[in-house]
Amino acid sequence: MELFFLGTGSGVPSKDRNVSSLALRLLEKRGTTWVFDCGEATQHQILNTNIRPRRIEKIFITHLHGDHIYGLPGLLSSRSFQGGETPVTVYGPSGLRSFIEISLHVSGTRLKYPLFVEEVEEGLLFEDDSFKVEAVKLQHGLESFGYIIHEKDKLGELLPERLKELGVNPGPIYQTIKQQETTRLDDGQIIHRKDVLGPPKKGKRLAILGDTRYLPELKEKLSGLDVLVHEATFASDEEAMAYDYYHSTVKQAATLAAQSGVKELILTHLSSRYHGELIKELEQEAQDIFPNTTLAFDFYQHKIT
Amino acid sequence: MELFFLGTGSGVPSKDRNVSSLALRLLEKRGTTWVFDCGEATQHQILNTNIRPRRIEKIFITHLHGDHIYGLPGLLSSRSFQGGETPVTVYGPSGLRSFIEISLHVSGTRLKYPLFVEEVEEGLLFEDDSFKVEAVKLQHGLESFGYIIHEKDKLGELLPERLKELGVNPGPIYQTIKQQETTRLDDGQIIHRKDVLGPPKKGKRLAILGDTRYLPELKEKLSGLDVLVHEATFASDEEAMAYDYYHSTVKQAATLAAQSGVKELILTHLSSRYHGELIKELEQEAQDIFPNTTLAFDFYQHKIT
Repeated sequence: MELFFLGTGSGVPSKDRNVSSLALRLLEKRGTTWVFDCGEATQHQILNTNIRPRRIEKIFITHLHGDHIYGLPGLLSSRSFQGGETPVTVYGPSGLRSFIEISLHVSGTRLKYPLFVEEVEEGLLFEDDSFKVEAVKLQHGLESFGYIIHEKDKLGELLPERLKELGVNPGPIYQTIKQQETTRLDDGQIIHRKDVLGPPKKGKRLAILGDTRYLPELKEKLSGLDVLVHEATFASDEEAMAYDYYHSTVKQAATLAAQSGVKELILTHLSSRYHGELIKELEQEAQDIFPNTTLAFDFYQHKIT
Repeated sequence: MELFFLGTGSGVPSKDRNVSSLALRLLEKRGTTWVFDCGEATQHQILNTNIRPRRIEKIFITHLHGDHIYGLPGLLSSRSFQGGETPVTVYGPSGLRSFIEISLHVSGTRLKYPLFVEEVEEGLLFEDDSFKVEAVKLQHGLESFGYIIHEKDKLGELLPERLKELGVNPGPIYQTIKQQETTRLDDGQIIHRKDVLGPPKKGKRLAILGDTRYLPELKEKLSGLDVLVHEATFASDEEAMAYDYYHSTVKQAATLAAQSGVKELILTHLSSRYHGELIKELEQEAQDIFPNTTLAFDFYQHKIT
């Protein structure tokens, strides 16, 4: 899994940072990409990457502020124009459906793929063999959500020693044994997969939060995550301003990361007032509290290992 | 007056050309800018110019295809965020109001300036002391308009010889005489402005057309214009394709320019299939029919003299 930051600014685009969007690439797992938020010109940012719009499978919108959604009609339309045929599901707060429907309707856009829009409430959003995604409520001027992505544990490695003990010699049969719970060999012997596998590989867990005030009560939900992506609209000394505008400071985000015991913190959604040297200072402010912090920039790629 | 091309591509953005938008700068005349069409990331293009969003006074939308409107909510919002306080009027086909209203509403956007949306029908759109703008119907997949901008004739220059004959010596009084129809001098003499002015300066006339099939019947409306901005989505040998998709070829646009006897033709809205050397060939195809043709590119500026 890899995070690919497409827009890391807040409010309005600047030359340094576009408005919000973040891609989560699940190429090994399912060959697809999920997108979190879709500010204006997200499709333009994608033009400068090797992300294929046709590979986008799900889009999660944290909240409906313009800098998080105005790129959605264009991305959905261009995906169709560029030959995307597989279904897309867009998740987000109530109001999202009418925005998408009106935008596509007035522009006479007929998508060549099935589009599903699911308006979100707190709780489990979806679950399949590989992933479970959960929405948590944040505190912002508009209804805002964070998404917690649980990758399911993966099967452990086959243990060749154990297989040999059972008299199974290496060959294509190994793959078969790994793919199903029980396998009957040609000699009638039944192999239970659980008996020949090492310990499961722990799935990764990460949270991508939308705009929010500092919410220490999230620490249970975020406890022990591999990666937390948190907004940091303001510098640490702007706590009052952050509160008034329903945002967080760098320090607050780092504090929550420390309180939750996550492994890594990535900060995004920076006010355009900060650039150059100031950005390094902000990163340092966070690292003083939570050392494993990175401040994202547009086109920053982060492998989740 | 100056045309500033912000997006000259068609359908979807490419690295070479953004989707449609064109600014008409009226800086001398009224200190404002008018924008024609507003595809996604028009505000991003503006970031790379010296156009000030707060100076945008009117936005004319030719038709509601996404590549002409998806940048509108972002531009309107950012203009407010960046301190724009003067009113903006957006003109365009029916459906435009609901797109703008829903986009601003779901995103919780409250503009700090008055926004007027006028859904357009063929005919006179508005007229004031300096300009008259007229909408003409085109032929496209969706209702599409061209806008004809008539700059009103400007007063001629004051004739110093004539003023001297009347015994008026140079000084601030000259400005006063030019500003009003009649001026009473200190000695009681009445000066009629019309008696001391040279011939009026002809106002400029230009047409900015939306997407359209070749429409020779427009030639009367376009007759003698200073500048015609016409789409040229396809190369000259793609007439059937142009017809099927309700677009024009380079050759058709040049033919209409020749038939109308306009002074200059600027082509825009090029399919992303054309780049590099091919672009020069397209320009040549047009110039063979109408020599005074320019093929626009993003950030192309064209003074109307």
